[in-house]
Amino acid sequence: MKQEILDLRQKMQEVNVDAYVVSTADSHNSEYVGEHYRIRQWLTGFTGSNGTLVVTQKDAKLWTDGRYFIQCEKELSGSEITMMKMGEPDTPTVWEYVAEVAKNSEKTFRVGFDGRTIPKKQVEELFNKSKKAGLSEEKLPEIVIEQDLAGELWEATDKRPKRAMERIRLLDKSFTGADVAEKLTKVREAMEKEACNQFFLSKLDDIMWLFNIRGNDVKFNPMALSYAFVTKERSFLFVQPEAVSEALKGYAGAFDIVICEYDDVFKFLKEYPYEGKTLVDFSEISIMAYKAISEGCGEEQIINGKNPTLELKAVKNETEIQNMREYFVKDSAAMTKYIYWLKNGEHKKLTELEAMEKIDSLRSEVKGCMGLSFTTIAAYGANAAMMHYEATEESHAICDNKGMILTDCGGQYPGATTDVTRTVALGEVSKEEIADFTYVLKGFLALMNAKWLKGCTGRNLDILARQPLWKRGIDYKCGTGHGVGCYLNVHEGPQNIRWKYIGDMEEAVLVPGMTVTDEPGVYIEGQYGIRTENTLLVRAEEENEYGQFLSFENLTWVPIDMDLVDLSILNKEEIELLNTYHRACVDKLAPYLSEEELNWLKKL
Amino acid sequence: MKQEILDLRQKMQEVNVDAYVVSTADSHNSEYVGEHYRIRQWLTGFTGSNGTLVVTQKDAKLWTDGRYFIQCEKELSGSEITMMKMGEPDTPTVWEYVAEVAKNSEKTFRVGFDGRTIPKKQVEELFNKSKKAGLSEEKLPEIVIEQDLAGELWEATDKRPKRAMERIRLLDKSFTGADVAEKLTKVREAMEKEACNQFFLSKLDDIMWLFNIRGNDVKFNPMALSYAFVTKERSFLFVQPEAVSEALKGYAGAFDIVICEYDDVFKFLKEYPYEGKTLVDFSEISIMAYKAISEGCGEEQIINGKNPTLELKAVKNETEIQNMREYFVKDSAAMTKYIYWLKNGEHKKLTELEAMEKIDSLRSEVKGCMGLSFTTIAAYGANAAMMHYEATEESHAICDNKGMILTDCGGQYPGATTDVTRTVALGEVSKEEIADFTYVLKGFLALMNAKWLKGCTGRNLDILARQPLWKRGIDYKCGTGHGVGCYLNVHEGPQNIRWKYIGDMEEAVLVPGMTVTDEPGVYIEGQYGIRTENTLLVRAEEENEYGQFLSFENLTWVPIDMDLVDLSILNKEEIELLNTYHRACVDKLAPYLSEEELNWLKKL
Repeated sequence: MKQEILDLRQKMQEVNVDAYVVSTADSHNSEYVGEHYRIRQWLTGFTGSNGTLVVTQKDAKLWTDGRYFIQCEKELSGSEITMMKMGEPDTPTVWEYVAEVAKNSEKTFRVGFDGRTIPKKQVEELFNKSKKAGLSEEKLPEIVIEQDLAGELWEATDKRPKRAMERIRLLDKSFTGADVAEKLTKVREAMEKEACNQFFLSKLDDIMWLFNIRGNDVKFNPMALSYAFVTKERSFLFVQPEAVSEALKGYAGAFDIVICEYDDVFKFLKEYPYEGKTLVDFSEISIMAYKAISEGCGEEQIINGKNPTLELKAVKNETEIQNMREYFVKDSAAMTKYIYWLKNGEHKKLTELEAMEKIDSLRSEVKGCMGLSFTTIAAYGANAAMMHYEATEESHAICDNKGMILTDCGGQYPGATTDVTRTVALGEVSKEEIADFTYVLKGFLALMNAKWLKGCTGRNLDILARQPLWKRGIDYKCGTGHGVGCYLNVHEGPQNIRWKYIGDMEEAVLVPGMTVTDEPGVYIEGQYGIRTENTLLVRAEEENEYGQFLSFENLTWVPIDMDLVDLSILNKEEIELLNTYHRACVDKLAPYLSEEELNWLKKL
Repeated sequence: MKQEILDLRQKMQEVNVDAYVVSTADSHNSEYVGEHYRIRQWLTGFTGSNGTLVVTQKDAKLWTDGRYFIQCEKELSGSEITMMKMGEPDTPTVWEYVAEVAKNSEKTFRVGFDGRTIPKKQVEELFNKSKKAGLSEEKLPEIVIEQDLAGELWEATDKRPKRAMERIRLLDKSFTGADVAEKLTKVREAMEKEACNQFFLSKLDDIMWLFNIRGNDVKFNPMALSYAFVTKERSFLFVQPEAVSEALKGYAGAFDIVICEYDDVFKFLKEYPYEGKTLVDFSEISIMAYKAISEGCGEEQIINGKNPTLELKAVKNETEIQNMREYFVKDSAAMTKYIYWLKNGEHKKLTELEAMEKIDSLRSEVKGCMGLSFTTIAAYGANAAMMHYEATEESHAICDNKGMILTDCGGQYPGATTDVTRTVALGEVSKEEIADFTYVLKGFLALMNAKWLKGCTGRNLDILARQPLWKRGIDYKCGTGHGVGCYLNVHEGPQNIRWKYIGDMEEAVLVPGMTVTDEPGVYIEGQYGIRTENTLLVRAEEENEYGQFLSFENLTWVPIDMDLVDLSILNKEEIELLNTYHRACVDKLAPYLSEEELNWLKKL
């Protein structure tokens, strides 16, 4: 067993904790977190963005989702930590498992975790599952939330990265389309609907969106570590003092925003002179913040409601949409140049790392590019079967003049966050690879060209992308699509495209202005991986006696590698859709491409 | 205002009832009910199978669903009863409406209804909606359930039909595939899972299925009015004395079934010496029966659980499947002969009534036919835009040598209940009609040939049938499909194919052995209606690393009218599917068709 786990077990014994839970989250329940917060990764070696570790004296188990099964197994090998496949029929959830272990304990079972990183809702889940497992009210587990046992161990090694504290930047209205005052008005309307006078917000991208600010505390995500507290008259923004510029101070003054110290938030929440009810979202708020507020205003005054900024942020306004359209075209041009280079460039022995560097450098040259929106995946051959593979200096494949390379990447721009995947043939490919690619393409086109009645969620639409693959007896073990932020996180809710919802996954009605990716794929372990991904925007079509129809506007304009398409598998509508798409790519990308690149594109 | 409603208002005043609710159901929450129970129809004139009337001193409102909007409006015209469109965004539910009226009442609001006809769950719904409307615990409406005000009025006219009491028949194991003892064992296993010693069942088709009996108390549905009560050791069957034959007595003796009097059930439920918990399904059990049981065993001993017979009955066994396959072919032959007659027969002035009589008579000639499974719909031209139109002696269309006739019908056989719809051209048809028909066909074929991973419900699959129409900006305001019984009701749950679920609609995972119809359509008010419907059976495909794949086996083999198909709208896969389907029709129907009929079929 890894020394880190053994040390943790030692600590657990010292403070009498029977099970210790380490999630991936920071204090804001973020999907992607700063280096400082990667405790679970340090403990286990698993680098994926979704994983929860549960350590007892007997076991160490790590839950992750279908995107990471192959990668996680690899990274855990030799560690004696068991991977738990989230969402598989026989896998208990984290809390079901903890409840089951608690049930078999003779004394009161004590569950420990860093209370800043576990949301209130998950604690409720622990208690619910415990009751369901048959534990009586008196025998329910006790939670120990004040001690960051694993974090302390990491600190003690002197190797834990410092917490990031980068300067906060203001984002201009020409990008946001609405100033903080307008946004606060909408938030307060939502508060009023819930009859709440206060609203506490800990979700980083929502705070960035609400205050029209951006930070650099999380790699790839323009986030500043922060909390927000909104009352009927005022708004409080908790940020690290080092992050505050003179410009931010002036801006805060102009919009009557009170700047407070990040680390004072729990004290503030305990001591605030609350009036009436306070709105929080149990799926976001940490148990620590929840306890602080309940100390301040009493538990019965806390209203668990949907965080109102979630949907406000998800529905892009006209300014955002206009910017997104433009930046997506520029970003698509970089990706198209990259594909041209892959297919026509001179590279004796191409490596995944070179490919990665090429697309990253092409993207960095795009005017306005602020960086990448996530680590570029350039995965050759069997590596592409790992949905979130990352090539490194130490370990990367050398590409051959055959097979396929999958590249999934995106950029951050002041007016857009992009996300695109293309799979490209590097030479000879098998009939099976071509067939799989073409069936993925069928699903990709079917979803992109969907039209539906308002009221549908991703659950209704998902089968359009999956049906051609299901007919071949193939599935991809992840959702078909996720929401995309606007110069925010590359994964954004509440909307998504999935056929089943497990655990806490949200299912939201798709409304005009929402973005969503369309990314079906085929992943054959040990052989190859295929994914084709565009970002789409929900837009209104006609409204008639049947209701309001909706469809997608396509934002991504990157060609499909026709070397991988078997036209005999496509029907005439699909061929027409593909041709129309390629003609649009030519029109939109022409200003950004060289003559050779454009000529190549025109011939697709 | 109709005299019946005025009389009801008078009665309401006498017993101090502020709102009176009349649903469509009998005492078993049946979808289709015997003549004796059609109180709502008698009061309002609306003949549809789904409608709930709420009468106050000021208003009379009738809720119905999208299948009946056109018909209901017609039938209510001149009555001052307002139609309420269920499921439309702005329509409150029945109980939301009652709660809203209650809220505006100064005194305690009294809601009356026949307590045998309103399920416990709906009463809970009334209270929930009342709380949501802002009524405090003390101001919640009072329910008055002992008085069947409307029924008494009808009785007083001397025109109310007597309650049916037909002889009960036994169904042989060669049709049921499992005897009552085997079925009771499964029910008791389900009871044990819920730690219940008693189970009360009031759903007629479930009782028929469980005891392998059939009745004739409801037209088209082989039901006997009955209740069942199952304990760990015994089973009690409540039926009308007139329904009990010597054979049933012997059978009951052999399987240790206690035959009791139907009208004694409430007394029995009050007086039974309960041991431990009793399982009931709140969505089925009437509030009257619920009250009786709670008097008998105490409310805290009643467990609200899914009625276990529902899914047991829905998953057909091998014997049932084998019988269904055979009877569906025979039934399809009758329908095919009918279509041949429509298209090639000599009829100077065809009427809807003649068409109806023709298919009904052809079906009655099928060996084993026990009758129809519902009133045949033969709707010409604009009449077909009414999803559940019924031609009568008094009112029916004369068909012209142009346009389309829609025929939706089915039969009862000892081994199957069938349900099929075909729309047929009677001569010249418009381009629009052909296009709409072809897009319906595309959706019909897409769903029929679907393949999916186990875990999907009808919500996942529905868009396959609807997408081609949605792309044209057209919708049909009903589900795409419903479960079908096996010599039971033509509508059977819990499974169905829908894109949204309103009110109490159930959403169930599709599993092998379940049946479901595939019936997309286009309904253009005042112009025409199109529907194509087959009955499908869920079956297992391969199980692999992605999970268990499922698909449909087609049960209905009736040709599609190629005069209505624009081949240029179909893609090559669809044309191939259609050809394969027609070849299979030829193979399966050949033994039952005349030479002319077969030759015609072969040429399609």
